[in-house]
Amino acid sequence: MLGGMQDFELRVSTLLDHAAREHGAREIVTRWADGSETRSDWRGLAHDARRLAQALERMGIRRGDRVATLAMNHGHHLAAWYGTIGMGGVIHTINPRLFDDQLVYIANHAEDRVLFYDRAFQPIVDRLRGQWTSIERYVVMDGDGPGTLHALLEAEDGDYAWAEGSERDPCMLCYTSGTTGHPKGVLYEHRSTLLHAMLVVSPAVLALSSASVLLPVVPLFHAAAWGTPFAAPLAGAKLVFSAVNDAAVLCGLMNREGVTISSGVPTVWLAMFAHLDAAGTALPHLRMATIGGSAAPRAMIERLMDMGVEVKHLWGMTETSPVATAGAPPVGWADWPKDRKLDFLTKQGQIPFGVELTVIDDAGAHLPRDGASAGRLHIRGPWVVKRYFGAEADAIDADGWFDTGDVAVIHPDGTMQITDRSKDVIKSGGEWISSVELENAAVGCPGVAEAAAIGIAHPRWDERPLLVVVRKPDSDVDEGAIVAHLSGVVAKWWLPDAVVFVDSLPHTATGKLLKTALREQFRDYRLVAA
Amino acid sequence: MLGGMQDFELRVSTLLDHAAREHGAREIVTRWADGSETRSDWRGLAHDARRLAQALERMGIRRGDRVATLAMNHGHHLAAWYGTIGMGGVIHTINPRLFDDQLVYIANHAEDRVLFYDRAFQPIVDRLRGQWTSIERYVVMDGDGPGTLHALLEAEDGDYAWAEGSERDPCMLCYTSGTTGHPKGVLYEHRSTLLHAMLVVSPAVLALSSASVLLPVVPLFHAAAWGTPFAAPLAGAKLVFSAVNDAAVLCGLMNREGVTISSGVPTVWLAMFAHLDAAGTALPHLRMATIGGSAAPRAMIERLMDMGVEVKHLWGMTETSPVATAGAPPVGWADWPKDRKLDFLTKQGQIPFGVELTVIDDAGAHLPRDGASAGRLHIRGPWVVKRYFGAEADAIDADGWFDTGDVAVIHPDGTMQITDRSKDVIKSGGEWISSVELENAAVGCPGVAEAAAIGIAHPRWDERPLLVVVRKPDSDVDEGAIVAHLSGVVAKWWLPDAVVFVDSLPHTATGKLLKTALREQFRDYRLVAA
Repeated sequence: MLGGMQDFELRVSTLLDHAAREHGAREIVTRWADGSETRSDWRGLAHDARRLAQALERMGIRRGDRVATLAMNHGHHLAAWYGTIGMGGVIHTINPRLFDDQLVYIANHAEDRVLFYDRAFQPIVDRLRGQWTSIERYVVMDGDGPGTLHALLEAEDGDYAWAEGSERDPCMLCYTSGTTGHPKGVLYEHRSTLLHAMLVVSPAVLALSSASVLLPVVPLFHAAAWGTPFAAPLAGAKLVFSAVNDAAVLCGLMNREGVTISSGVPTVWLAMFAHLDAAGTALPHLRMATIGGSAAPRAMIERLMDMGVEVKHLWGMTETSPVATAGAPPVGWADWPKDRKLDFLTKQGQIPFGVELTVIDDAGAHLPRDGASAGRLHIRGPWVVKRYFGAEADAIDADGWFDTGDVAVIHPDGTMQITDRSKDVIKSGGEWISSVELENAAVGCPGVAEAAAIGIAHPRWDERPLLVVVRKPDSDVDEGAIVAHLSGVVAKWWLPDAVVFVDSLPHTATGKLLKTALREQFRDYRLVAA
Repeated sequence: MLGGMQDFELRVSTLLDHAAREHGAREIVTRWADGSETRSDWRGLAHDARRLAQALERMGIRRGDRVATLAMNHGHHLAAWYGTIGMGGVIHTINPRLFDDQLVYIANHAEDRVLFYDRAFQPIVDRLRGQWTSIERYVVMDGDGPGTLHALLEAEDGDYAWAEGSERDPCMLCYTSGTTGHPKGVLYEHRSTLLHAMLVVSPAVLALSSASVLLPVVPLFHAAAWGTPFAAPLAGAKLVFSAVNDAAVLCGLMNREGVTISSGVPTVWLAMFAHLDAAGTALPHLRMATIGGSAAPRAMIERLMDMGVEVKHLWGMTETSPVATAGAPPVGWADWPKDRKLDFLTKQGQIPFGVELTVIDDAGAHLPRDGASAGRLHIRGPWVVKRYFGAEADAIDADGWFDTGDVAVIHPDGTMQITDRSKDVIKSGGEWISSVELENAAVGCPGVAEAAAIGIAHPRWDERPLLVVVRKPDSDVDEGAIVAHLSGVVAKWWLPDAVVFVDSLPHTATGKLLKTALREQFRDYRLVAA
């Protein structure tokens, strides 16, 4: 049909162009690990990114090549993102906390050609550069001596036009470090990144505007810092980075820079509360805290609410760009009693435009949104993975659904609630028992320090729960007391068939229960009644 | 490269699917012209739209066909939009206030096959159906007798899957009624409409969430009601429609339904203020008023501010979907003195992501953002027209810029300010004199009822301003007094070379000064000094 609207590719570089043009003087502040601070702005970042693009081309980096970072949150890291993406490359953020074998696997699998890294990670580089097979250039990101990013930039003039191309071109690569098998790479595209940024800016998520001051505590190497570095230029917000994750530092920075929104995992807030109490200080500018990574405890949400901070759970994963749900205040919020608000906010939030969620049982049936029917949570949408980097098959089913590996219910009001990981859920007589809920209930029993629930094979019920408990140092709590406590909290058929006591439980490097090890440890355990 | 994100076409129907799924019980309320009210919700609208799609297919309407409406704001009108778009058709909203020859031209040029209309416009239909050459079916939208939209829907079951297709398919057609030549059709696409809706939802524009209650006073037939009917389902907002534009009705509806955001032209608020004063009532729920169509007077903005309502100018045109700028509060807003806020809000707002604006002089040079250099305002972006419907050439220049026909300056803070229409600006010695500013200054002179400034040919300066003035009934204000008044308000070289007095000025049907007629009237006028 004759007529129509203009042709524009949704390219990530247009975000930076917009911010430099319309909010050029809006600052990007970095507080470095050594206590020093540098200040740039969107205009300065655009200049740096153009110079970095020139430097990469001078190195022989070509469109589609992967450029890796091993770095904390700072303005130079962001310049590396936009410079790499701007010249048509793919920025690959590597999590420096991974094990050596993962660091080696990931960089080699990605075929990274350049590594930008913080001086603090020099020991990692020294240890692994012999095993990294594709990296040709190593560039230190902080400081300004020879061979640093600063020196690279100084050699260029910034007279550079962004690479053009399709909005379906890749722009970023993030690996997920699963508990089994090799890490898998999620290859974000310009289009998916831009649409996701539009979501993050919306009132359903960060409600970001040019008046916002955003401090992402979530690392840039973790699922694109939840999209905040792309949402900030879209909105023209001020960005504040801290290269160290220390509550006193963060608190000082938030108050000095007038931070209105912060994003991080729950432990950030535990440390912050301790600091606020010890220092007798407050966060008067903070308006919103978005929490992801794992569920925030009810008491944490309540304290933030009492501080006058709007609290939102964001749920998602590397495979979902990552934001998939957000706990935005619904109709009538102001009139809700506090308990109802807390009930709502402890769940994972509602489903924004662009995201579809469904819970599916083992038979493949889509379960009702009744707040009770737990099933495997599936997702689809324009910012959800289709195929992992280098994989030979799609990661989605015939209907386009990606299995998140989580077990969840969806409530009648559309709120989603994660109840377990699907590999941890205990399948008893065709029904699912949430290991997480059982554990949470058990640690509410006096004398219980930590608890893990795993499924043990059962001839009649398929699986039945075994509760593995670590007692508090001075406690002699026994099975009877624990089961009696649980009887008042969970359904009768959820009660563990047995409780065993151990001195300690196995954990991952990041402090999560290592259920695989626990299941291995109790592989030969036989329930008495079985 | 192997790997990537999911494939999703940005189709308008996904907005309705989302709202029906996640905010299904969020209401769509209509207050009809006869005082009755009907209440539906997003789930109900989705059902109606599916049934309407079935009915259109049953009529033989095919993908890409145009389906017209001649209707006020109500839920059935919205169902016609989503039903038509959902079956792959193009909804063509016709402005019932146009002249008959325009109504005939537009429907024939669009080759509309169906017309949905309000019973109130039966006289138009009776008068023009003999001249409409392509319309095969006429369907009344209101009421529920035989042949009505209601009857059509009742014959269908709603078991319908939306038409699939490209996001670049057309979905909507709106004609601009220029002052010269035939009206021109702007053909919106699924993709442009969806990206524009994401903009409208963002904090820079409406800051729409599922807690919002939106009453668009702007007609559905006017530039897609500024995108509100697409933004509302995206956010899950409640929509409230009034089929009549009467201040008492609107006020009652706003207070009864808890309307938080309203959008309309300035005259809506003039009438509302008069009603509020006369009835001694208020609008306690209203949080935001977005104003477009023409510039809101400073006093109007101030009164809304004093009511605790956030005021935003939205600027745009049919060719820009329409939102192109929005007066969003910038950094430090809360600390600004009131006068500074008013100065800011009387301008046309800032440039959001997705929109590029530039002002260009007659030599084609891009002018600086100095708040003083006035030039022709050009725009480009993914929701800006490329080519008018049925046109044989693009409406944009080689760099993709569309000439808005407005004259504007851009201030150093990125705020855009319209100063004139480019066909009305007076070009004197290579510099531009704003006819609008001259007129506004002139009506500030005691004794002046109305004033129009036009350019008169001048051998040395190319053009010089002539001021045409209507005196107030009891006034004998003369040229000397007017020029003396202007001397204190405008630059010396802006002062009119002559002032002439007339009994009345020519106006368009919508009350705007008809400068074309005035220029014709003074075609042979010679300036004394020339």
